[in-house]
Amino acid sequence: MAIHKDDVIRLDIDDIPTKWYNIAADLPVPLPPPLHPGTMQPATAEDLSAIFPPSIVRQEMSTDRYIDIPEEVRDAYVALNRPAPLCRARRLEQYLKTPAKIYFKREDLSPGGSHKPNSAIPQTYFNMIDGTEHLTTETGAGQWGSALSLSCAHFGLDCKVFMVRVSYDQKPFRRLIMETYGGKVYASPSKETEYGRKLLAEDPDNPGSLGIAISEAIETCVHQENTKYALGSVANHVMIHQTIIGEEVIKQLEFIDEVPDYMIACAGGGSNLAGFSFPMLRKKIKGEIDTEFIAVEPSSVPSLTKGEYRYDFGDTAGMTPLFKMYTLGHDFIPSSIHAGGLRYHGMAPAVSLAKNLGYINAVSYDQHETFNAAVTFARTEGIIPAPESSHAIKAAMDKALEAKKTGEEKVIVFNLSGHGLLDMGGYSKYLHNEI
Amino acid sequence: MAIHKDDVIRLDIDDIPTKWYNIAADLPVPLPPPLHPGTMQPATAEDLSAIFPPSIVRQEMSTDRYIDIPEEVRDAYVALNRPAPLCRARRLEQYLKTPAKIYFKREDLSPGGSHKPNSAIPQTYFNMIDGTEHLTTETGAGQWGSALSLSCAHFGLDCKVFMVRVSYDQKPFRRLIMETYGGKVYASPSKETEYGRKLLAEDPDNPGSLGIAISEAIETCVHQENTKYALGSVANHVMIHQTIIGEEVIKQLEFIDEVPDYMIACAGGGSNLAGFSFPMLRKKIKGEIDTEFIAVEPSSVPSLTKGEYRYDFGDTAGMTPLFKMYTLGHDFIPSSIHAGGLRYHGMAPAVSLAKNLGYINAVSYDQHETFNAAVTFARTEGIIPAPESSHAIKAAMDKALEAKKTGEEKVIVFNLSGHGLLDMGGYSKYLHNEI
Repeated sequence: MAIHKDDVIRLDIDDIPTKWYNIAADLPVPLPPPLHPGTMQPATAEDLSAIFPPSIVRQEMSTDRYIDIPEEVRDAYVALNRPAPLCRARRLEQYLKTPAKIYFKREDLSPGGSHKPNSAIPQTYFNMIDGTEHLTTETGAGQWGSALSLSCAHFGLDCKVFMVRVSYDQKPFRRLIMETYGGKVYASPSKETEYGRKLLAEDPDNPGSLGIAISEAIETCVHQENTKYALGSVANHVMIHQTIIGEEVIKQLEFIDEVPDYMIACAGGGSNLAGFSFPMLRKKIKGEIDTEFIAVEPSSVPSLTKGEYRYDFGDTAGMTPLFKMYTLGHDFIPSSIHAGGLRYHGMAPAVSLAKNLGYINAVSYDQHETFNAAVTFARTEGIIPAPESSHAIKAAMDKALEAKKTGEEKVIVFNLSGHGLLDMGGYSKYLHNEI
Repeated sequence: MAIHKDDVIRLDIDDIPTKWYNIAADLPVPLPPPLHPGTMQPATAEDLSAIFPPSIVRQEMSTDRYIDIPEEVRDAYVALNRPAPLCRARRLEQYLKTPAKIYFKREDLSPGGSHKPNSAIPQTYFNMIDGTEHLTTETGAGQWGSALSLSCAHFGLDCKVFMVRVSYDQKPFRRLIMETYGGKVYASPSKETEYGRKLLAEDPDNPGSLGIAISEAIETCVHQENTKYALGSVANHVMIHQTIIGEEVIKQLEFIDEVPDYMIACAGGGSNLAGFSFPMLRKKIKGEIDTEFIAVEPSSVPSLTKGEYRYDFGDTAGMTPLFKMYTLGHDFIPSSIHAGGLRYHGMAPAVSLAKNLGYINAVSYDQHETFNAAVTFARTEGIIPAPESSHAIKAAMDKALEAKKTGEEKVIVFNLSGHGLLDMGGYSKYLHNEI
């Protein structure tokens, strides 16, 4: 097998996109606004200003098609390994004996190991220019907390991360990565907040939840000087930032003169799917292409495939605004699958609307199937994928096998949203036949 | 701070070097040959053929200046992320307030997370074309075993790794990475070999050692059909393969028109130092440049700074050939520092000779100092370095601070040999003031 030059499609640093894309400008119906949990009325800029800085509030409410990426953010993207290569999975194709061409975007190469810094960097930057000195956030498995700690180190802000206690105890490496970047990490529920102290008084062994951690992060943000809150998914400004992925992919596919038949990404809160897909989805909305967009989710957390499209709380405790989204209900308890980033009851409103309008299809797989695909990918392409990204790999492999049956040279592009080097516990269970 | 285009110096895929460099052709005295442990005579090609395939034996004994890199190996290098960028550590420079320019080579971006695949790939390839079906090796912390498992998956060979039992138990992630790539990993001493069974009969709780693991790998290689042994450092063919690093660096420095004042790498067995330095060292031997080459080692394992230059066994048990090298004695027991890759009593003969001839200087640091440098690097440059690589970072920072005192615009280039994502246990101890 010879490597063709087109097997690794890189962009020059000068080619890094200068604008993010906002799908709110192109969807045929407006993005339903979040509702204030107290009044059930659309949240106002003033409501949002309690937790976000003015620049982020403007982005969150924007319907502009393109938003300029500040030079300092582009510089930070470059410093943290952007542009990211688009690679052809030629060895995987040969293993599958498929006539399809499989490409994947490498979001695993960032120092955080995932796509999460794509939004952590601009959120931190805009907070910095708006005068924020401290950021708070919550994290489950730790990908988002790592990305925000890294970004805060980059722009010189303080970072407090409330990490779900069970993950804090079970995933010490992720916590240590945040601490190495200078983030302060608290097991949630913590003694740092009134809400945390109340919960600990009731049950000192409370294992925590993302909902509790969100509440603690927001309480800290509201009570501490010069402090704002940063969110890793769901909100539209996060989707916008992540389109740096898809804007690069468009340039890369143009360079090799390919139009994808399928664009595939895993979907938890929706940020990597939106970032990867939306710039290309714009062409579909405009009728220029016929690409099928596929969201892949765990069959045990099937928000897009089995959820209802309605307003629901963003968190478990019911303290955040309500979002119009596909949801399993905010009291849904996801099973403890290893793809921690996909354990979310809802889905970003922008992704949900695109799905509801028929622009995105959704499929689901169980984790035995996705780990099987992950190991095949590792042995053929040499990269150990994140359990989350393995959902996209499995769907891409299935489409490649369909193409083998029909003999069609389909073009399949998927997003490798992160690496799995800190998720080897899940691989262990798969390799030893425990899942 | 604006990113200058020269802050990330990438090479085109077509620019990947076509030849490895062999310093044996240019050192003013011949490389002292290994001695057979039984006869104490120079090991012959026939001796080496018991464990290495003919292509590797030829390379090991070669004095040719350049050795062609087969196209299949170059393709595999590209598939596994080569060429590697050379980056300017501008934020670290600003943090140190130094007029020096600091550059680092990114060997952390390989799927194995270190420079080790640079030799694992060609060793596996040459074994494949010479008809080997199975490879055996030993691994301590697991970097080399991961690289060889990955390469065996790439070229379709079986891989057996004997992993020091204490690491097998303490570093399950590294073991799982090997297993994900399809490698078979045995805690050493194991029941797979006569030697292992003998040791286990004497002491079922034997924690193992690299020396024992080497013995088991070699016994398996000798007794099993179509099986050879692969070595991750010390031998000259490994140094040769690793020069892919330094040949790239030469092109990258030429592109930005810089001549380094210092080239710095950590040194355990010597492979990343040799690979990074030797192509440039050739220019020094020829009198073309005045660069200072610096090997950095742990003060607790000071082979180059405090060892003797003499023949000694490569392993602890005294079963391998004897090498002329700087050694602390093969019975030296390194303290259990976190930079596992630097816990070796000896040093590659080629590196030792270059040091003995005055071409390379050596310095040592303790692990508190190197972790301190590592955390500074993570917070400025966003990358969590391997504990081994942090030794080079510390030396680079010290040279940059010297330049600050003298006001000189020194050019410092160091090798970032790997990332530290699987070494967070060491970071934990540092961050919590335990080392």
